[in-house]
Amino acid sequence: MSGLKPAKIGIRGRIFQIVFESDTPLGKGFDLLLVALIFFSVIVIMLDSVQEYHQRFGAIFFYAEWTITLLFTIELGLRIYCLEKPQVYLKSFYGIIDVLAVLPTWLALVIPGAQTLIVLRLLRTLRLFRVLEMMALVGQGKLLLGALQRSRDQILLFLFTVLMLVIVFSSMLYLIEPRESGFTSIPKSIYWGIVTLTTVGYGDVVPVTPLGQLISVMIMLSGYSIIALPAGVFSAEVIRTLREERYSDEACPGCGVHQHEYDALYCKRCGTWLDEECTAPDTPVKPARKKRGK
Amino acid sequence: MSGLKPAKIGIRGRIFQIVFESDTPLGKGFDLLLVALIFFSVIVIMLDSVQEYHQRFGAIFFYAEWTITLLFTIELGLRIYCLEKPQVYLKSFYGIIDVLAVLPTWLALVIPGAQTLIVLRLLRTLRLFRVLEMMALVGQGKLLLGALQRSRDQILLFLFTVLMLVIVFSSMLYLIEPRESGFTSIPKSIYWGIVTLTTVGYGDVVPVTPLGQLISVMIMLSGYSIIALPAGVFSAEVIRTLREERYSDEACPGCGVHQHEYDALYCKRCGTWLDEECTAPDTPVKPARKKRGK
Amino acid sequence: MSGLKPAKIGIRGRIFQIVFESDTPLGKGFDLLLVALIFFSVIVIMLDSVQEYHQRFGAIFFYAEWTITLLFTIELGLRIYCLEKPQVYLKSFYGIIDVLAVLPTWLALVIPGAQTLIVLRLLRTLRLFRVLEMMALVGQGKLLLGALQRSRDQILLFLFTVLMLVIVFSSMLYLIEPRESGFTSIPKSIYWGIVTLTTVGYGDVVPVTPLGQLISVMIMLSGYSIIALPAGVFSAEVIRTLREERYSDEACPGCGVHQHEYDALYCKRCGTWLDEECTAPDTPVKPARKKRGK
Amino acid sequence: MSGLKPAKIGIRGRIFQIVFESDTPLGKGFDLLLVALIFFSVIVIMLDSVQEYHQRFGAIFFYAEWTITLLFTIELGLRIYCLEKPQVYLKSFYGIIDVLAVLPTWLALVIPGAQTLIVLRLLRTLRLFRVLEMMALVGQGKLLLGALQRSRDQILLFLFTVLMLVIVFSSMLYLIEPRESGFTSIPKSIYWGIVTLTTVGYGDVVPVTPLGQLISVMIMLSGYSIIALPAGVFSAEVIRTLREERYSDEACPGCGVHQHEYDALYCKRCGTWLDEECTAPDTPVKPARKKRGK
Repeated sequence: MSGLKPAKIGIRGRIFQIVFESDTPLGKGFDLLLVALIFFSVIVIMLDSVQEYHQRFGAIFFYAEWTITLLFTIELGLRIYCLEKPQVYLKSFYGIIDVLAVLPTWLALVIPGAQTLIVLRLLRTLRLFRVLEMMALVGQGKLLLGALQRSRDQILLFLFTVLMLVIVFSSMLYLIEPRESGFTSIPKSIYWGIVTLTTVGYGDVVPVTPLGQLISVMIMLSGYSIIALPAGVFSAEVIRTLREERYSDEACPGCGVHQHEYDALYCKRCGTWLDEECTAPDTPVKPARKKRGK
Repeated sequence: MSGLKPAKIGIRGRIFQIVFESDTPLGKGFDLLLVALIFFSVIVIMLDSVQEYHQRFGAIFFYAEWTITLLFTIELGLRIYCLEKPQVYLKSFYGIIDVLAVLPTWLALVIPGAQTLIVLRLLRTLRLFRVLEMMALVGQGKLLLGALQRSRDQILLFLFTVLMLVIVFSSMLYLIEPRESGFTSIPKSIYWGIVTLTTVGYGDVVPVTPLGQLISVMIMLSGYSIIALPAGVFSAEVIRTLREERYSDEACPGCGVHQHEYDALYCKRCGTWLDEECTAPDTPVKPARKKRGK
Repeated sequence: MSGLKPAKIGIRGRIFQIVFESDTPLGKGFDLLLVALIFFSVIVIMLDSVQEYHQRFGAIFFYAEWTITLLFTIELGLRIYCLEKPQVYLKSFYGIIDVLAVLPTWLALVIPGAQTLIVLRLLRTLRLFRVLEMMALVGQGKLLLGALQRSRDQILLFLFTVLMLVIVFSSMLYLIEPRESGFTSIPKSIYWGIVTLTTVGYGDVVPVTPLGQLISVMIMLSGYSIIALPAGVFSAEVIRTLREERYSDEACPGCGVHQHEYDALYCKRCGTWLDEECTAPDTPVKPARKKRGK
Repeated sequence: MSGLKPAKIGIRGRIFQIVFESDTPLGKGFDLLLVALIFFSVIVIMLDSVQEYHQRFGAIFFYAEWTITLLFTIELGLRIYCLEKPQVYLKSFYGIIDVLAVLPTWLALVIPGAQTLIVLRLLRTLRLFRVLEMMALVGQGKLLLGALQRSRDQILLFLFTVLMLVIVFSSMLYLIEPRESGFTSIPKSIYWGIVTLTTVGYGDVVPVTPLGQLISVMIMLSGYSIIALPAGVFSAEVIRTLREERYSDEACPGCGVHQHEYDALYCKRCGTWLDEECTAPDTPVKPARKKRGK
């Protein structure tokens, strides 16, 4: 949102303060209202999907949906109206989500039987991230995301290896198990393999032969043990991230190198005394003397 | 309990020692009796819920329940009697639990068919925390709680993101899967989504279409991998807490080294006396002398 | 085994070397034979439990079992014969296991229908620990056990809290759910609660009401998230244990304090120069001077 | 692949560059084509196993399989042709996999009904590792593998102990539970035990007696808690590996401080030149001068 430029003054500037920012009482109220509307909207969509409620309260849900859509459309209009360059906003992540929040209902007018758009309507929940971001909660997530990105390669490699193991073992069960026990094809067997490895274990497909059960047991024990791998890698990354808070960002006045540990007194590159606030002590010469004496 | 003020002396003071404290033999005996009674009470409630036992031993359970309730009521009376300001106690966490432990049975006299109060009766188990606290076990939990509180924001954000993913994916299955396979509504689909993501996998609702199974597999792999996130964050926090318990952040006044253990008196690097608040003792010279004498 | 005293010399001493130790070729051969026999024995017991195999090979299994029992009995005899104080051995962990390995089969002669002793027979697998111990693998386990013991209190507290939550939530489902869905009593509900919380999810008992499913979802998310707690605590303990390898065990020559970090040059307690091998430098006096100058 | 020696020059040298290396545009193109072919091949094998697709597109799958096999055979021929010592390649890990990728289809010509070779065909996915290795992703895996190897003993010991517990507890359920609930033999009970301990929980075998359910609950809680063990050990190992990558263990010759980062040239504590092997430069004096000049 930082990239958006409001219309300078007047009514548009005030609207910008309300709908895009949250440091005024009105802005905060607007955010709260938005969160309430999103939750209300999601609940309406969910309840409407229950057959029983749909039959009894279908009309109410219909009007509720339209009310919310109209409110969201007005909000979208205000957002576009108060910006100088609305096209930048409309192409941003939040802009797309805001449009997606109202589009499905309007489209349902044109295209009949657009029930498949329900999923798109539920993307409205993503709008909550905007409010979360304002609440600085997302900053917390950046630590998580940072550690996740750094361990991404290892976790992908882990998932890839796991998947290959599952493919090989599952196709073995496809050969061993009778078709009646559910292993009707290799894709179905792989589905079973992942259900087993991830320890979900629905029980809809289950090995019945002793050999099949033996292989299953090996998949289970693998799945149970190797969960330790991504957990370990990720732990290590979080700890590393937390520790890096211990690195100073100040550059060495002698050579300009960054990333000294916080307890460092001399630059690890050129030996310059790092602490600006102290008067330079006599000591920096001493180590050199000691050194020569050696 | 530290905030409770007993009646100063006499019989009330002695009762306070027994029911609120546990450093006298009688106090310890009282605690043990309480633990035994709570366990006995919980077992009675549980067994009474088994239809077969209820029919055969219903009367015994009835009298047992009343005996326990009367004993707990007497205990509650003693607690109130021996305190100068019982209203403080009654508003405290333990006070509320103590009242809840006896209330349901008494209420059942007035309101018939108060079977729903069984859950309240089981809250008696919470009374065990008082004894645990006296056993200093709860202190251990404070480390856990501290680390949990510090990683709370990240874990909440994690849960929130997970929930949104589940909502979006589950509603996709609601559209894809035939109603007969159990995906009768979006809330039911979300229930299935959480059963799958948390790797519980009851198998009461199970995808039957290939596409549905493909999306399920993605939810499973997500659920299996992202468990590493809260585990990693929490590990890092516990490690940080344990380290902070051990190391001081103050630098040595002699050489500037950080990270001395809290019980260190001299810098491990240069031997300088660390404690600023003390007057510098003569001792810093002594070790050197001792050394030479050796 | 370290506490066992062999008969000094002669045949008994040689037998001791073979059956109790593993540094001679014969001793190693004996160990391997023992491992093979234990595995063979366990496989026989398992296969004998399969109805089909029991009917066809029952007699063979019977003789195999007796052969193994006789061999184990002879081995036990040798162990007792070669020791000076066999009663110490017989009261030790391994002594009890060795006796339990042969007792059930002999008892089955006296007591008919002692099929319940099968479990005791399977305790023979515990004998494998003796061989593992000789292979120094158990030493690895001591690190694990040490970390486990240190985090024991926290993990017990964790399990206790979890159990209480399960009891309260499960009894709520006992009230909410219809008896037909499997929640026939509170103990059964608690069984379901633990099946759910530990993410096992058999699916034999499953909530059918929306409210019941909502509470289930909360138990699942709890179970899924709080697994991070023992994992975090245990990780931290293992890391701490590994780090303690970084502490020197040598005492300070000045004041006798132990547990200096490996990179410490001066005692953290009295400031004495720690490194015996170096000639005492002039520096230990300097910090004191600096200190005064301050 | 580093051990393979190509024919020096000419056409064979050029082929080597293409099929074995990936730093030329042609080599990269070849790799991409290979990845595409492997994926295509695996998808064909999988779809062919679906009865419905086999009946409708069986002929297409048959020709696709033969096309891929011919292409892989030509590739194998090129690999052998361009090497000076093809026998070294054929005995290497990747050589064996390359042969296994084409063998099953050719064998099916000779041996009828070789459907069991499907699993071998799926081993083609292992060929992807070669491309991954070139993409340097496997280097990431070496960190994982290193930490895994170091914690191997502990994790094996853990698995062994867990297995023994499962054997003992499962055989108890074999005695307690009625045969109808699925505990028909000890091996079947152990299968159930592992399904339970690893929290897979299919639900195909489920305890029905209260005592059996009590023991199950104990297995579940064990399985749920002890997953923390391998996770903890592995976390600790990864953290240790990451730290060792960063810090040198050599002490500073000036002040004895350990734990300098590997890229440090001067001690962070006293500014002494760290590299013993170099002749001491004049620079240690310079930083101080620079400092003053500032």
